[in-house]
Amino acid sequence: MTYTHNTRVWLPDTDAAGILFFGNYFRLAHDAYEAFMESLGFDLGRILRETDFRPLIAHAEADYKKPLPLGERVTIELTVAKIGQTSFHLRYSLKDSCDEVAATLETVHVAIDKKSGNKIPLPDELREKLVGFK
Amino acid sequence: MTYTHNTRVWLPDTDAAGILFFGNYFRLAHDAYEAFMESLGFDLGRILRETDFRPLIAHAEADYKKPLPLGERVTIELTVAKIGQTSFHLRYSLKDSCDEVAATLETVHVAIDKKSGNKIPLPDELREKLVGFK
Amino acid sequence: MTYTHNTRVWLPDTDAAGILFFGNYFRLAHDAYEAFMESLGFDLGRILRETDFRPLIAHAEADYKKPLPLGERVTIELTVAKIGQTSFHLRYSLKDSCDEVAATLETVHVAIDKKSGNKIPLPDELREKLVGFK
Amino acid sequence: MTYTHNTRVWLPDTDAAGILFFGNYFRLAHDAYEAFMESLGFDLGRILRETDFRPLIAHAEADYKKPLPLGERVTIELTVAKIGQTSFHLRYSLKDSCDEVAATLETVHVAIDKKSGNKIPLPDELREKLVGFK
Repeated sequence: MTYTHNTRVWLPDTDAAGILFFGNYFRLAHDAYEAFMESLGFDLGRILRETDFRPLIAHAEADYKKPLPLGERVTIELTVAKIGQTSFHLRYSLKDSCDEVAATLETVHVAIDKKSGNKIPLPDELREKLVGFK
Repeated sequence: MTYTHNTRVWLPDTDAAGILFFGNYFRLAHDAYEAFMESLGFDLGRILRETDFRPLIAHAEADYKKPLPLGERVTIELTVAKIGQTSFHLRYSLKDSCDEVAATLETVHVAIDKKSGNKIPLPDELREKLVGFK
Repeated sequence: MTYTHNTRVWLPDTDAAGILFFGNYFRLAHDAYEAFMESLGFDLGRILRETDFRPLIAHAEADYKKPLPLGERVTIELTVAKIGQTSFHLRYSLKDSCDEVAATLETVHVAIDKKSGNKIPLPDELREKLVGFK
Repeated sequence: MTYTHNTRVWLPDTDAAGILFFGNYFRLAHDAYEAFMESLGFDLGRILRETDFRPLIAHAEADYKKPLPLGERVTIELTVAKIGQTSFHLRYSLKDSCDEVAATLETVHVAIDKKSGNKIPLPDELREKLVGFK
């Protein structure tokens, strides 16, 4: 299954080279992640305010294929790549308005207890939702 | 007339105080401005690439009424406040999900010639569109 | 008295127009503010973690005089413009490498109690430091 | 050889979790890269304005070891990992104020001709400087 998030390249995300700054691809992917988590009932704002569960990012990477100019429409296709005991992996494909892949990204999220800073098992409800989505 | 732009508070726009960073209200307002200009046929990407007209911002200000927490839905109502020979003023009202005004902003845009850096009259077509909107 | 903070225009702060994005002037000013507060013994990180005092920004404005290109060195001169019962006003002058003023900014900070969200008097120690600086 | 860049975690780079937003580690690494390139005589601002050479980032990745809280001092150690015909790889180690590694990053830069968008050999002068540094 694929979760789709539509966005665009806004001016403050571009840089003097006239295109999306490479670090801001992670920003767009994270927007898709926030919307995806919310669609599963895991609103990040609520999690941060009301729980000690922190899905911290332990690894992130991006392969850039095509520059994304100012104003370009971007479709992000998010998939669940892997679900472990204490972690999950997400992949993102960013397509431009010609439906060509401009970049692919991956993020690895590890469940951490806010107080101890230690790894903990993924909350059952989240695991079920992720498995159901995969 | 009012141009409406819907957005939300994404994680990277918040800060360690848990709310939208004050400087990022300008970012949200500018997103609304980009979408507004595009709706008038003045796609900023095209303007920057194909013309020497630069609608530079000469003044900006914001009054903050309510903090905007992570995940909050924000409706931006943009109005044209003033149209001069070489400039125009825009106002923005940012409303939260309770329909309360969280902030009001203003930006003053001055038409500049990219090459000389000097003020120039607003392009006729833009002036007409702004007058029509006002 | 003037507090001086030196910085530069990094690529991610520029936009497709090749210059510092107007909203990021507030970011640079806030960097100067953080460094200034720390110099007074009011480390923002510590305040957010250990106290209920929040010096929220209620108003911000900027006048832009000269674009700041990528790589430009910027000197920020911060002054305390006003000290009230529950608020203080700061002014910032951003000078480029030619020692010309590229922008002036102002921020108004209001003392808020984190829990109630209400205005509170400025902490005595901060007031004394600000008065001493002014 | 190692190029060292000192910086800190400013408020707008943190997020509602109270720590440096994962995407902003790339921002800090890029600051170090800009300063490094400038130290080699390759000022990015000048390159973008005066040449058709674009050292575009084709791949980026980060491994996160420790969260970086607001105000934390960060030392970035940049090394040249690999130099190819048309590309070079940089590695970054971000150390916190306890001299512990908070994150390691890597960026792969490919030489592109601005007009054609095609890969080109690294400019000789840059290659020599990178080899000399390695």
